[in-house]
Amino acid sequence: MVAILLSLTDLAIYGVLRVYGVRSIRWSRIVRPIFLINFAESRQIRRAFRSIRNTLPEITYVFLLFMFSLLMFSLMALKLFGERNLQTAEGLPYFRNYLEIVFDLYVLVTTANSPDVMMPAFDFSSWYALFFIAFVIVNTYIFMSLFLAVVYNNYKKHLKNEIRKLAYMKRRKMIEAFNLLKEEEGEQLVVREARWKQLVKLVAPDISNSHRELLLRISDNEQKGFVDKKSFVQLADLLNIQVVTLKLRSHPLARWVPRVYGSAASRLLRGLVRHRAFVWTYDAIILINAIFIALDEETPYISYAEWVFLALYITEILLKVYTYEPRAFFGKTQFWNWFDTLIIFAALTATILNATLKSTTKYNSQQILDIVFILRVLRLIRIVDSIQRFRVIMNTLINIVPTMLTFGGLTLVVYCVFAIIGMELFHGKIQFFPADSNAPHALECGNPALKDSLFARGKYCKNNFNDFASSFIVLMELTVVNQWHVFANGFANVTVQPAKLYFIAFHIVMVIIIVNIFVSFILEAFFVEYSLEKSEVETAIEQKIQELGMGVQEDELQDEQLLDNMESDEHELEGEGGAKPQPKGLVFKIASKTPFPLLRRPFCVPCPHLTTL
Amino acid sequence: MVAILLSLTDLAIYGVLRVYGVRSIRWSRIVRPIFLINFAESRQIRRAFRSIRNTLPEITYVFLLFMFSLLMFSLMALKLFGERNLQTAEGLPYFRNYLEIVFDLYVLVTTANSPDVMMPAFDFSSWYALFFIAFVIVNTYIFMSLFLAVVYNNYKKHLKNEIRKLAYMKRRKMIEAFNLLKEEEGEQLVVREARWKQLVKLVAPDISNSHRELLLRISDNEQKGFVDKKSFVQLADLLNIQVVTLKLRSHPLARWVPRVYGSAASRLLRGLVRHRAFVWTYDAIILINAIFIALDEETPYISYAEWVFLALYITEILLKVYTYEPRAFFGKTQFWNWFDTLIIFAALTATILNATLKSTTKYNSQQILDIVFILRVLRLIRIVDSIQRFRVIMNTLINIVPTMLTFGGLTLVVYCVFAIIGMELFHGKIQFFPADSNAPHALECGNPALKDSLFARGKYCKNNFNDFASSFIVLMELTVVNQWHVFANGFANVTVQPAKLYFIAFHIVMVIIIVNIFVSFILEAFFVEYSLEKSEVETAIEQKIQELGMGVQEDELQDEQLLDNMESDEHELEGEGGAKPQPKGLVFKIASKTPFPLLRRPFCVPCPHLTTL
Repeated sequence: MVAILLSLTDLAIYGVLRVYGVRSIRWSRIVRPIFLINFAESRQIRRAFRSIRNTLPEITYVFLLFMFSLLMFSLMALKLFGERNLQTAEGLPYFRNYLEIVFDLYVLVTTANSPDVMMPAFDFSSWYALFFIAFVIVNTYIFMSLFLAVVYNNYKKHLKNEIRKLAYMKRRKMIEAFNLLKEEEGEQLVVREARWKQLVKLVAPDISNSHRELLLRISDNEQKGFVDKKSFVQLADLLNIQVVTLKLRSHPLARWVPRVYGSAASRLLRGLVRHRAFVWTYDAIILINAIFIALDEETPYISYAEWVFLALYITEILLKVYTYEPRAFFGKTQFWNWFDTLIIFAALTATILNATLKSTTKYNSQQILDIVFILRVLRLIRIVDSIQRFRVIMNTLINIVPTMLTFGGLTLVVYCVFAIIGMELFHGKIQFFPADSNAPHALECGNPALKDSLFARGKYCKNNFNDFASSFIVLMELTVVNQWHVFANGFANVTVQPAKLYFIAFHIVMVIIIVNIFVSFILEAFFVEYSLEKSEVETAIEQKIQELGMGVQEDELQDEQLLDNMESDEHELEGEGGAKPQPKGLVFKIASKTPFPLLRRPFCVPCPHLTTL
Repeated sequence: MVAILLSLTDLAIYGVLRVYGVRSIRWSRIVRPIFLINFAESRQIRRAFRSIRNTLPEITYVFLLFMFSLLMFSLMALKLFGERNLQTAEGLPYFRNYLEIVFDLYVLVTTANSPDVMMPAFDFSSWYALFFIAFVIVNTYIFMSLFLAVVYNNYKKHLKNEIRKLAYMKRRKMIEAFNLLKEEEGEQLVVREARWKQLVKLVAPDISNSHRELLLRISDNEQKGFVDKKSFVQLADLLNIQVVTLKLRSHPLARWVPRVYGSAASRLLRGLVRHRAFVWTYDAIILINAIFIALDEETPYISYAEWVFLALYITEILLKVYTYEPRAFFGKTQFWNWFDTLIIFAALTATILNATLKSTTKYNSQQILDIVFILRVLRLIRIVDSIQRFRVIMNTLINIVPTMLTFGGLTLVVYCVFAIIGMELFHGKIQFFPADSNAPHALECGNPALKDSLFARGKYCKNNFNDFASSFIVLMELTVVNQWHVFANGFANVTVQPAKLYFIAFHIVMVIIIVNIFVSFILEAFFVEYSLEKSEVETAIEQKIQELGMGVQEDELQDEQLLDNMESDEHELEGEGGAKPQPKGLVFKIASKTPFPLLRRPFCVPCPHLTTL
């Protein structure tokens, strides 16, 4: 609401001033990215922003201390080098002006101008290197790590608080629900089995009957026909844990043409496909393929070889679908199978398209060819999946992709704000001309102020704020940090010197805060991955699964056994009473990970009440 | 032993070959830094090396995956850009040769050549920026964070294992000791009080009587006159915890000239010094001093002002010593008082020296002047201590200095190895000439192979491997990472292209492993600082101190009360039996931190047996 109001005010002011012929700045544009955050879908981003806001006080103290250290070192540098009449490699005066020293040393903290900033003093006397070594150790190594520590610590803490709040809310709601549904049973207040089942069917309509029975067994451990308050409150957690119902199912071909599918030749073929040597053969093929890709494209042999490789890969997929159950092969959790198939078929389509274009127009389409190249190389990733150790790392990386998207959103919002400001400040000041252009000052990006600057010499003219896309790419380069001082100096030269503040502000917001949060997140995700503890509730479910004899050993799992729980048989386990059931072909398994590890196991400080609340 | 043997073999071979006129490489020089590690004092460094060795397998997997990703992206880059005939800003061919692409993209991972490496492709088509964005996200952000995560995790784990081993050893030794000293007491086997005291006096001769009594009270909780096995085993931990004995002592002047010291004027003065306004006044003086430092030195007013400031600071120290107890003021834990006094007196000495030299020889000595400048600026750090929040951060930083020295040792060993190799490879290839030199190729660092190279253009000639000191500075610059590819290319140009491998190896060892360990360590130290839990044993001692009525509130603590425990009175507490003692002027306090936080509280995973073992 405030954002809308601000925008309207701005619009009004702008309109009025326009009438009187004054062109004012549309400052409310900066507010617009707030609308991005306010979508219902961006709850994660809002939460991240809230946690950043909470981190700010703590970070401010470290930042002030860091600034103090920077100012102190700058003062020292001014006294040590200010009157030596030294010159930089570009022939400019070296360390004369206090504010310039502060900027240069701030850049050194980001390491972007090391060792250039040191060379004049170092050439003058080797001892001065000690000053810069001390500076780098204190500011780059210690303070930058300190920022990471503060961001990490606070991010964790506030996220944990939010989770605790959520857990508290959940518990309260569950107790409310219990009070509505409770009946008297002897001396206890309980929820009866029938009502409990009705409730679960209502709140989780898409879990299988057998899964529901499993949950009931856990909630009503002694099979008394009712669920007590303590177990009832746990229900929300139980429902949150993904239990995969596994089923040994026969191949559809085995049902349709059982004689052919069961024949000796077919069995031999399937045996071959399941054999380790099959995987090794294809790994070898991928390696040979890699060499062929690296070789020159123009030789006709090699472009034929591409067709051979495509054929081999397609054969592989067909053989696998023949051997394994297709629905299991393309199950929701079978990331690699999906990846393989999509890449291969996209490559096939693109290659055919390219060949058709070539035979009709005699020209390669550059875009399609680029895509074909990329797809061909991506195909090679497959080899990583063959090595168990790599697969673990890759799976963790794949698991954290959804949360990385939150960071994508966060970055987008920050980029939007800075892109809008940047376009306000620097629009049109720097222009890009193709190499063969005859425009005046083409080599100085169309702006004589950049003559002999590092910006023009580095041929950075295409890095400008003339449109949104260019701004985003400039901001990306600023995020990567290197050479950002060249950008800052370049854009300050074409406008005013205080424009450097824009770049410093971006560095503080993006690199010191957001990138550190991203690093914290990756650290966190891998720590959780390394500490293989399961939560109490998960352990309870697993125990029950084992008790009921429906567990499955990790190593027994074959790809073809994985099935989504919606496909499980509806009639099993129902009404079997106390007898230990041994349903053939039906097993449960706890799905390995929830997408956001922090939500799964609060980091570090043991909080047992978090998972059992 | 192996190192000595290798060195001798090398010496023999070298000698024999020398006789025949062949100059071979003294390869055993690389082994020499091993001798550095083998000092008895470098146990910490050896432990760190052991933990690095244990980290290697885990890191190797991530590294292989990272290399795979790098090779894949390089292949893609070759296919996308290889045949476009693009040129870099220096007019060199862009992305033609596979190995060069791999090197360029490896450099991009370290961000050292961003955005230069992207510009030719980006100028050609904006879409190609996406390739580099994807590359940076995957390799720079994700993989580099992954390295940090793996290093951090393993470092923690292996250090914890070592500590666990040590704790186990300690427990076993303590049980052995108990078995030697035990006597029968009723049904229990115990150690009697007299023998226990004798033992403590023997193993810890320098703790005070009252401190020993305190420990006895904890070990013999019910005052039965003996210590049972469980409490006895705890003794080692009890002795490890630093307990500061505080004593309210009167000022020596109050004893020597009580009438003067107790007079109204003296009391008023002391009241003023203790007042907050006194601190504020000096903070204001420091700020004004900062401005004066920044101003020009040559104005006579300002050089007089320097004397005024020096006088003011000395007055401050004298006033404080007058007000507070001198031995407490210069206590072991009073870092800031020591710091202040040393800086001021060093500045005084240097300034007087400088003034004397100036008046006698009419010239400033540059070295002394530099030192004076640095000391003057360092004085300003004092202001940080006035703000509570900054003080906490500073204290943590000061606490971790001892362990940082371990990293210093680690770095020294790695630097030595690489410096020796670097001097073998690059000695004399690059020379530094002063700016006014007439030597041939002075601008190309004395080597025509560097003509037009970025190395010569950046005036990096003084960065060479001609002696140990220069090598160390080059390695420091390589640790900071920026522009390392310019060094690598420069040194490869003056020798052979594979010399780049030296620089890549250094980056892997130093930046990916050692710097990450350093960052982990800083993170760890601050996490421990943020989680203010005390170990069980510490809590037990603190409880006892409170029980005995000898505790002290943190906020009651004044600087003048701090005393080292060796200075405490020997006659108190002795033989007071069961009565609750209320010794006037004697209080205990647990010293805030042990120097190495990891040893204090094992990170994250709760291991109660670690501290109580």
